Amino acid sequence: MRAVDLIVAKREGEAHTRAQLAWLITGMLAGTVPDYQMAAWLMAVCCRGMTDQETADLTAVMVDSGRRLDLRPAAPFVVDKHSTGGVGDKTTLVVGPLVAAAGVPVGKMSGRGLGFSGGTIDKLESIPGLRVHLSDAEFIAGVRQVGLVVAAQTSDLAPADGRLYSLRDVTGTVESLPLIASSIMSKKLAAGANAIVLDVKVGTGAFMKTEAAARALAAAMVAIGRAAGLQVRAVLSSMDQPLGLAIGNALEVREAIATLRGAGPADLRDLALELGGQLLAMGGQAPDAAAARPLLQAVLESGAALAKLRAFIAYQGGDATYIDRPEQLPTAPAVVPVLAPTAGYVATIDAAALGLAAVALGAGRPVKDAPIDPAVGFVLHHKIGDAVQPGAPLIDIHARSAAQAAGVAGRVQAAFTLRPDPVAIPSLILGTC
Amino acid sequence: MRAVDLIVAKREGEAHTRAQLAWLITGMLAGTVPDYQMAAWLMAVCCRGMTDQETADLTAVMVDSGRRLDLRPAAPFVVDKHSTGGVGDKTTLVVGPLVAAAGVPVGKMSGRGLGFSGGTIDKLESIPGLRVHLSDAEFIAGVRQVGLVVAAQTSDLAPADGRLYSLRDVTGTVESLPLIASSIMSKKLAAGANAIVLDVKVGTGAFMKTEAAARALAAAMVAIGRAAGLQVRAVLSSMDQPLGLAIGNALEVREAIATLRGAGPADLRDLALELGGQLLAMGGQAPDAAAARPLLQAVLESGAALAKLRAFIAYQGGDATYIDRPEQLPTAPAVVPVLAPTAGYVATIDAAALGLAAVALGAGRPVKDAPIDPAVGFVLHHKIGDAVQPGAPLIDIHARSAAQAAGVAGRVQAAFTLRPDPVAIPSLILGTC
Repeated sequence: MRAVDLIVAKREGEAHTRAQLAWLITGMLAGTVPDYQMAAWLMAVCCRGMTDQETADLTAVMVDSGRRLDLRPAAPFVVDKHSTGGVGDKTTLVVGPLVAAAGVPVGKMSGRGLGFSGGTIDKLESIPGLRVHLSDAEFIAGVRQVGLVVAAQTSDLAPADGRLYSLRDVTGTVESLPLIASSIMSKKLAAGANAIVLDVKVGTGAFMKTEAAARALAAAMVAIGRAAGLQVRAVLSSMDQPLGLAIGNALEVREAIATLRGAGPADLRDLALELGGQLLAMGGQAPDAAAARPLLQAVLESGAALAKLRAFIAYQGGDATYIDRPEQLPTAPAVVPVLAPTAGYVATIDAAALGLAAVALGAGRPVKDAPIDPAVGFVLHHKIGDAVQPGAPLIDIHARSAAQAAGVAGRVQAAFTLRPDPVAIPSLILGTC
Repeated sequence: MRAVDLIVAKREGEAHTRAQLAWLITGMLAGTVPDYQMAAWLMAVCCRGMTDQETADLTAVMVDSGRRLDLRPAAPFVVDKHSTGGVGDKTTLVVGPLVAAAGVPVGKMSGRGLGFSGGTIDKLESIPGLRVHLSDAEFIAGVRQVGLVVAAQTSDLAPADGRLYSLRDVTGTVESLPLIASSIMSKKLAAGANAIVLDVKVGTGAFMKTEAAARALAAAMVAIGRAAGLQVRAVLSSMDQPLGLAIGNALEVREAIATLRGAGPADLRDLALELGGQLLAMGGQAPDAAAARPLLQAVLESGAALAKLRAFIAYQGGDATYIDRPEQLPTAPAVVPVLAPTAGYVATIDAAALGLAAVALGAGRPVKDAPIDPAVGFVLHHKIGDAVQPGAPLIDIHARSAAQAAGVAGRVQAAFTLRPDPVAIPSLILGTC
């Protein structure tokens, strides 16, 4: 086999066999297929696509490039959740405790923020003492004892994905549906869960800007998971405005806690119940997601889900007393409101712009491995459809200083558009597959 | 400027500016744009194409990557010829002397054989003593004194093309019209001629298999040349069978000499008159190629063209006495005819198969820098349309040994197909642009 022949075949739109993909990926890891050949191949994949079978095969080859976590010692059935990334998306911190409290163990590997999108691992690290880097034994014991673990992705799961992703990042080959789908699913499959719910975000604050693109990605990921013998369901959810009201690490942890206390924004609670319902249904607790909702509402109202959050944080070394005194989580010294310039109805909220403004405040990383500030971010007072009076606060900026807040105030205000006529509240859940 | 942004822009089908292309190519040569980024960009170009303006700009940037030969000390108007490569294509050895003898100086850089296609430089080296590596001063003096020089391409003309071509060769990005056109034209522009005739081969024995592909390449190259202020014309000529009767280095030199003596195959003479006519017309010797034909026929019949061949060979250190005793050129020990298996009319002759069989005999290089055997090759007895009797020789194999000839005889015979009904003689010249 020669790499150049595989590259030409892909350039001409032909499909590879699994053996060909295995040869290519093994060669990349062994250094016998140089980066320049992989780069040409990746661009050919971007331009010509891959069949469902190829995408499933590539995923399997990437899983085979490393070890696969064996969760059978933890529980006979473990579930996982993945979000394609959005602004204000703290859903894992609500769904995890709900599902675990309802009796289905959750073992999840998470990522850090990327671009305008936050990451669960960054959010968890705003809780003093909490460790996100766990050994396999700690991960498995946590799933067994607590029923909920959320740890940072380890580099020995699907190492080929890490290598490919680094190359894609510098060769303009990130935006390819089969490459995105296989990258996500290779890490999920290697993490060992039996069922996965995928929260595929769509809208201005998501990587997938259109419902068609999001639906295609969802379908590709579901197909990969099912080809690997897993239960997988995908929920398409809107990211045309931030999820909930809080953006920023500690601010989002507080909002998650509030939601588990029965308060919190309605959209966050609704999405958590939908995703959790899908997981309970796959876990056999209910015939479908709708039927699972009362089970989740019960553990929410009883405080069992909040107790599960406490136990999970304590297991990972975090100070669980913060859960009951969230005001002691890191807070920003300067809280500056941005006011509505006129009367009107909130028509749009540019989630990506707010996500990038949060990064500018220090909530995310402008460059890899930069330190982040857990305290900073935004809290919205209004969402799409709300009527506002002139001078009423639209959003609070939580910043290190008043000067820093002033530095982003202009673009934060510009992220909102108001209209004189009433605006319909957009749908949150756009579909499932 | 960032390479990844240019790669993404090209992946999305956008056009680059000349400044962007210059930045990219300069970065490649300086090592600041790594091969893996160039490889991804090349594949994006293969998949998305380039505008005429981009192709002209890329060519100009590649010319600017090295020095450009200044032929003004040689003559006020110098012409050049390029063939896209075929089997049995010894046209330069006929056109060059014809045009030079008719008063228009020819200064040409040539290449070596590549794949199934022969190269003029290899053919010239079958003449004992002839040097193809000339200094600039020797090249210029030859054009001035003799009116005809054919030298090997030097690596300091359009060095970016050499780097890009090496990368294309291993990344499956050779087959791209703008990349092929800019590669050819960058070397031609750097070689300093004022006018160029392009012989664009089309057919089974050419790199362009269809007339549409050849016409597109011709148009792209003509556009590049004209954008650079040169006179450029392209002739599309058929390569659905070998050109002339001889294939192989010394065999082709003999055929060229015979043609300049007024004998030789009709198709070779016709093509040489057409290409030469275009050069004379661009040189102002005649209003068009047809009007230039009598001038070329005159120097052919007078022996002036043959004298020019002698002078050119002598100037480059070759033994010009071989021109008058071509039987003393290298000859193969074994000459084995391949016979017609049945009666019929020659319907097809697979030129590419004969070209590759010639490489197998040693006439070309299976790997880079391999030595070649000047004596071996083929001489056809018949071409498409000829009627043959069973047992009549179709072609002679000129080989190092009878065993070597036997080794290729099967595929040589298979390169011919015969039909019971008369076959029309195909057109040689398919068009000009």
